[in-house]
Amino acid sequence: MKNYRMTVQYDGTRYNGWQKQGDTDNTIQNKLETILTRLTGEKVSVNGAGRTDAGVHAKGQVAQFRAETDLTEAEIRDYLNRYLPDDIGVLLLKEAAPRFHSRYNASTKYYLYRIGKNKAAHIFERKYIYEYRGETPLDTAAMKLATLQLIGEHDFRSFCGNPKMNKSTVRTIYSIRITETEDEIDIGFFGDGFLQYMVRILVGTLIEVGEHRRDPQSMDSLLESRSRRMAGPTAPACGLTLMEVRYS
Amino acid sequence: MKNYRMTVQYDGTRYNGWQKQGDTDNTIQNKLETILTRLTGEKVSVNGAGRTDAGVHAKGQVAQFRAETDLTEAEIRDYLNRYLPDDIGVLLLKEAAPRFHSRYNASTKYYLYRIGKNKAAHIFERKYIYEYRGETPLDTAAMKLATLQLIGEHDFRSFCGNPKMNKSTVRTIYSIRITETEDEIDIGFFGDGFLQYMVRILVGTLIEVGEHRRDPQSMDSLLESRSRRMAGPTAPACGLTLMEVRYS
Repeated sequence: MKNYRMTVQYDGTRYNGWQKQGDTDNTIQNKLETILTRLTGEKVSVNGAGRTDAGVHAKGQVAQFRAETDLTEAEIRDYLNRYLPDDIGVLLLKEAAPRFHSRYNASTKYYLYRIGKNKAAHIFERKYIYEYRGETPLDTAAMKLATLQLIGEHDFRSFCGNPKMNKSTVRTIYSIRITETEDEIDIGFFGDGFLQYMVRILVGTLIEVGEHRRDPQSMDSLLESRSRRMAGPTAPACGLTLMEVRYS
Repeated sequence: MKNYRMTVQYDGTRYNGWQKQGDTDNTIQNKLETILTRLTGEKVSVNGAGRTDAGVHAKGQVAQFRAETDLTEAEIRDYLNRYLPDDIGVLLLKEAAPRFHSRYNASTKYYLYRIGKNKAAHIFERKYIYEYRGETPLDTAAMKLATLQLIGEHDFRSFCGNPKMNKSTVRTIYSIRITETEDEIDIGFFGDGFLQYMVRILVGTLIEVGEHRRDPQSMDSLLESRSRRMAGPTAPACGLTLMEVRYS
């Protein structure tokens, strides 16, 4: 069996996320598996590095699968792109080392959350930005201050959207970069991995800080509480994009 | 009456073009007029610099209207953006000189046509690019050669989509810029004005040149024929965007 690695981008708007959950097959993973199974004549399983939620996008998802085939890398990639819907595309497809695993071997994941400040300026990107409609501008200086207590290795249970999570909720955030332009606030998250809804709950909490409804110095105690109820709301999926997965 | 000038951008996908034609009111112009009429309490007429066709987009349409109001420029702009649908946005709105007219005073219009060479790379821009599916790559050197005979003042009747056009079909194209990247061929058209479907028929004709199905040196005789039947097909609307309107 050969092992293949591919870089996939998708507009997640009309999908129930990357991965099969329950009885829906309207997932990115399922679209890829169906076409690869048809191509090879054998059941193919595709592993994604990041299990993006319903409505979340990707520009640099890395996925991996094993298959027995004589087709070239370009032939497999072109077959996928011919039969995939217009909102999913395979950018790269290469044979990988036999033991390469897209999720277990990932060292850093980079997620970008885009907050719009001017709907009129984002006509062409309106599905990929969360347009903030608050009365007053977000205080990004306060938001940046709050990120200082979030960086590093922590138990992020307060930011975990899955109340039944029974594995470790310890993760490491390497950095959080907040950049502001006239029309947009971007928040980039770099970490070794993220819990379900974690990035979006972090964003929802940082927005409350930016609205002066939450103390930027309260992140330490929020982490210590290990309680989802203490954190802010889950920011809308549309603003989130998995930008890149890095391997060491 | 004050005279206002605004810069408007829109995703033309679901509209029947800029301007009212026949009995449809599903136009950009109509959306703007309806809101402005509601705001001012008097019938407002909006003039666009370029009458973009159904499905054509704009990043820099300039439109102008007269109204009697005490509202500030920012108030009018914000009211429009609050009630416009998500795929239309007013970027700028300023009071203009009393005699300013967005169409008659325009000196240069810049239209961009985007031809995709790799569907997978354009997931997020798929509605704004015409994805070319020909067997062999387009010969952009031949296409550039063909543009040389198109530049300048000519009777462009061969490239006019309106067979009943009874006004002058003479227009001046200042330049045509073809740029190619790995995934895309862009054709920028700069001119004093364009006839109905003219840019898209020029693109359809240049694509035939790029496919070696038409001699790049045949543009002179095509112009001289003054016959729409001699030109190429009308390229799809989705690839075309009105980028900018300049005033001298």
